Amino acid sequence: MIPPRAILLVQCPDRPGIVAAISSFLFRHGANIIDFDQHTSEDEGGVYFTRLEFQTDRLDLPLDDLEHAFDLDVARPFSMEWRLARATDRKRIAILVSKHDHALLEVLWTWKRGDLRADVVTVVSNHPDLRAEVESFGVPFAHVPNGRDVRREAEGRMAEVLGAAGADVVVLARYMQIVSADFVARWPNRMINIHHSFLPAFAGADPYRQAYDRGVKIVGATAHYVTAELDAGPIIEQDVGRVSHRHSVEDLKRLGRDLERRVLARAVRWHCEDRVIVHGNKTVVFD
Amino acid sequence: MIPPRAILLVQCPDRPGIVAAISSFLFRHGANIIDFDQHTSEDEGGVYFTRLEFQTDRLDLPLDDLEHAFDLDVARPFSMEWRLARATDRKRIAILVSKHDHALLEVLWTWKRGDLRADVVTVVSNHPDLRAEVESFGVPFAHVPNGRDVRREAEGRMAEVLGAAGADVVVLARYMQIVSADFVARWPNRMINIHHSFLPAFAGADPYRQAYDRGVKIVGATAHYVTAELDAGPIIEQDVGRVSHRHSVEDLKRLGRDLERRVLARAVRWHCEDRVIVHGNKTVVFD
Amino acid sequence: MIPPRAILLVQCPDRPGIVAAISSFLFRHGANIIDFDQHTSEDEGGVYFTRLEFQTDRLDLPLDDLEHAFDLDVARPFSMEWRLARATDRKRIAILVSKHDHALLEVLWTWKRGDLRADVVTVVSNHPDLRAEVESFGVPFAHVPNGRDVRREAEGRMAEVLGAAGADVVVLARYMQIVSADFVARWPNRMINIHHSFLPAFAGADPYRQAYDRGVKIVGATAHYVTAELDAGPIIEQDVGRVSHRHSVEDLKRLGRDLERRVLARAVRWHCEDRVIVHGNKTVVFD
Amino acid sequence: MIPPRAILLVQCPDRPGIVAAISSFLFRHGANIIDFDQHTSEDEGGVYFTRLEFQTDRLDLPLDDLEHAFDLDVARPFSMEWRLARATDRKRIAILVSKHDHALLEVLWTWKRGDLRADVVTVVSNHPDLRAEVESFGVPFAHVPNGRDVRREAEGRMAEVLGAAGADVVVLARYMQIVSADFVARWPNRMINIHHSFLPAFAGADPYRQAYDRGVKIVGATAHYVTAELDAGPIIEQDVGRVSHRHSVEDLKRLGRDLERRVLARAVRWHCEDRVIVHGNKTVVFD
Repeated sequence: MIPPRAILLVQCPDRPGIVAAISSFLFRHGANIIDFDQHTSEDEGGVYFTRLEFQTDRLDLPLDDLEHAFDLDVARPFSMEWRLARATDRKRIAILVSKHDHALLEVLWTWKRGDLRADVVTVVSNHPDLRAEVESFGVPFAHVPNGRDVRREAEGRMAEVLGAAGADVVVLARYMQIVSADFVARWPNRMINIHHSFLPAFAGADPYRQAYDRGVKIVGATAHYVTAELDAGPIIEQDVGRVSHRHSVEDLKRLGRDLERRVLARAVRWHCEDRVIVHGNKTVVFD
Repeated sequence: MIPPRAILLVQCPDRPGIVAAISSFLFRHGANIIDFDQHTSEDEGGVYFTRLEFQTDRLDLPLDDLEHAFDLDVARPFSMEWRLARATDRKRIAILVSKHDHALLEVLWTWKRGDLRADVVTVVSNHPDLRAEVESFGVPFAHVPNGRDVRREAEGRMAEVLGAAGADVVVLARYMQIVSADFVARWPNRMINIHHSFLPAFAGADPYRQAYDRGVKIVGATAHYVTAELDAGPIIEQDVGRVSHRHSVEDLKRLGRDLERRVLARAVRWHCEDRVIVHGNKTVVFD
Repeated sequence: MIPPRAILLVQCPDRPGIVAAISSFLFRHGANIIDFDQHTSEDEGGVYFTRLEFQTDRLDLPLDDLEHAFDLDVARPFSMEWRLARATDRKRIAILVSKHDHALLEVLWTWKRGDLRADVVTVVSNHPDLRAEVESFGVPFAHVPNGRDVRREAEGRMAEVLGAAGADVVVLARYMQIVSADFVARWPNRMINIHHSFLPAFAGADPYRQAYDRGVKIVGATAHYVTAELDAGPIIEQDVGRVSHRHSVEDLKRLGRDLERRVLARAVRWHCEDRVIVHGNKTVVFD
Repeated sequence: MIPPRAILLVQCPDRPGIVAAISSFLFRHGANIIDFDQHTSEDEGGVYFTRLEFQTDRLDLPLDDLEHAFDLDVARPFSMEWRLARATDRKRIAILVSKHDHALLEVLWTWKRGDLRADVVTVVSNHPDLRAEVESFGVPFAHVPNGRDVRREAEGRMAEVLGAAGADVVVLARYMQIVSADFVARWPNRMINIHHSFLPAFAGADPYRQAYDRGVKIVGATAHYVTAELDAGPIIEQDVGRVSHRHSVEDLKRLGRDLERRVLARAVRWHCEDRVIVHGNKTVVFD
């Protein structure tokens, strides 16, 4: 049996003594550190980031009290933005999808196989096609038609479905509809999109066609947090594959599907294990 | 001893019978095919591309006459654009460089080691710094100051140097000056640039800084033929390397140097072995 | 609508005139070549390999007759080993599996999505666990217990199931049982295994543990044709992923699953599209 | 100007309080931590590894005294194996080479370009061929013939040369001679070899030929610390490149040269920046 664990994510202005303060605090309270990653960005005078995973079975006080004590003793003096997560608290994933099923299925499979510290709680699509597929995983499926003229109503309806399901992560698994800034704002840094190109190259529509027309020798896929600006949010993960003049647009799409699956699955896993800190328009990923 | 070889490069509208026509012609004249690559693009109603390498030691007529016969018997009936090169005809490379020496050295060294079917005949730089380095390879070095205000004179002077050296390939090995459309036009599809990003991402200046600011997880380098439009010519080769939040701009530059070296060396080698056919703004590379 | 196509695979001793003979023959009979790959190995005095894909809708004689004519006119004079396949003839795949489902599911899913020029006709397992999973794809599932003491009976039973299903390709998707030389001999160069290491490194049992213990920085997966000698058959495809001291054996397994899926899917697709020629203990893959 | 830095490398049995002890000690003495990597291996009941880089310009005592204090206050209580290095202390590299110059040149270049926190102090070869090349970098070259029958004398002579040059790292840059266990023992975990295969595949002689004969689809190179057992020491870094049936043994060698250069350069850089901890037959690399 694995002893219970918690994860601490912190970012704050860099200055001497942060590591000593955090590690001494945890040691004092009986928290055994399992994993301790950190990074100091040199931008803006130095920003310190850290992710700790520690055992909670020998704490000298309940975790809620530890959280409170950390706030007073460490977080405030160092002006930290921080959060604490129990490793047993599984995030709740909602997936938005259209007709392409590969990215959706990859997340469902990864979850089903037990490789995800999260649960898929609902799938919403603007097409009815994938209902049977989704329901075979025991996941509720909602068909919410969407389009330019019904955007507001559709997003209202989706927000209801996601709210009712208690979703705290939204995954756009090749969801082929624009999402409004208002909708995005409900899940800040918690809405993940897979873009089928190596961003910032080929932002916008039909990136495989764009890649084909430009004659690139490598194509890619990008998972990023969704922000109000299309295809411009913080990048979580990217991967690439080699192509040549022999590849048609269809070949690029087929190859791209594999890249999209891989990249999205990694990004979702990292997010669900609290391995990603967003800072400005960039991410720190403690993988 | 390797028997003498020739290389035939062809592009023409696709239609039945091309392979039979070419291969029968060569067989009839005693040319033993060593290597035969081809590709049919589906764009524009189909374009056929091929590269053949064949032995010339048992030809039933001199190579010049074979060339003439091919033109009459095969090339014209099929409306081919084509060229024939003797494998023993080594191309003559001129390198333009500024202060960064890594791309320059990679080409010089590849050449020196005998991995290039070409010779480096001259190096021109807008800075005097690399003279000793270049001359230690036995290659003449010319210092031609360049800049916005002296562009025309500088390019005139460079054209003289390159002309005198008999250069038929021009390699921009991190040459940090704009080259004018007129200058480019002297070496159509024979001027190769290494761009320090994964084009079309981060075209223009300081791509590593751009990549850093965008927070990409992979960086790249691109070798392409230079055209009048900056950073937009046909891509010959690209390669990439993985990066993370841990990489500073300086780290990206260091990592990028290795990518640039590798990508440029491959592109130059392929060009010198007549493995690249340009079609529109794309390349067919028979590697 | 795509016009009907056929695929011709050939290997023969290299000598002048082969290309001309094949291409002239096809042109003469109205077969328009779509794709023409070839390779000449320098081993053993030269072996010529080729794969052609050609349209059959304007043939001047039925395909069976063309096959006969090719045999007489071209294949015999050049001592060719060859075969002709209609692109519409879909191969019939049987999958053997134990408990790990990732490789199995990848093949099933690739097939279901229409990316495979073949059909999965039966799945056989030495465990009952994956029955529901498999049947949800509409594929029959047979549970045939296997083990050292019942090898002969088990293989007899499996041969019956596979025979009844008309399987002409057998895929070992992490089938954790030894297969006897007799069983292998029924599907020569038509039985594909996925080995969870970068062969020849870590042949045998528990390769991820072996890799972990050796401290390698890269792990891999290998798809190969099964031969009488364990893990030593002709390699069809390999791929790798980077690892570090941070990866536990469990991490290697998780990462490895993705590699195995990718590598096996590619190998099966290439086999089903008649892109693989086996020569001695090596493969020529016209991808 | 960069403030002076020191690097602390530690390994010890894992137990609670290590991070707190180290970081509090450093904070107390005015050492500002710049970089702090760590890893806990789950083998053998848990081993803790860490690498810290800290500024030394505001220490409250001289670095030698800090070293002494660390030993008493932290290292002994936690049973640490550890070492402290000043970032300004550049290691002294000796390179052993035979006739292949690519690995040698890569290290020399990297050094010359200023990318190495070390100096190349001598090059020894069993052939005289590369003398001019080496001396053009301003590095002394010694020709020490070697071979089965003169091993002992040769190694004695080399040990003198390396000793006189004050070498503390020995790089075998394709040195094609066996080195005896006695010779190796002089530079424990400080002698780095580049092997031209993806170890443990193709250990021993002529690995490219072995790879060709086995028909692998990927080849690699491996940098490792040399131990008494040939090709079996702790792996520092590996990299790979894709190949196909089209690659001859010569092609593999050419491609391999690039892999060898890249892999060796990284391994040497990491070693010189004190980023590698050897534990048993494996490495922890804090890159």
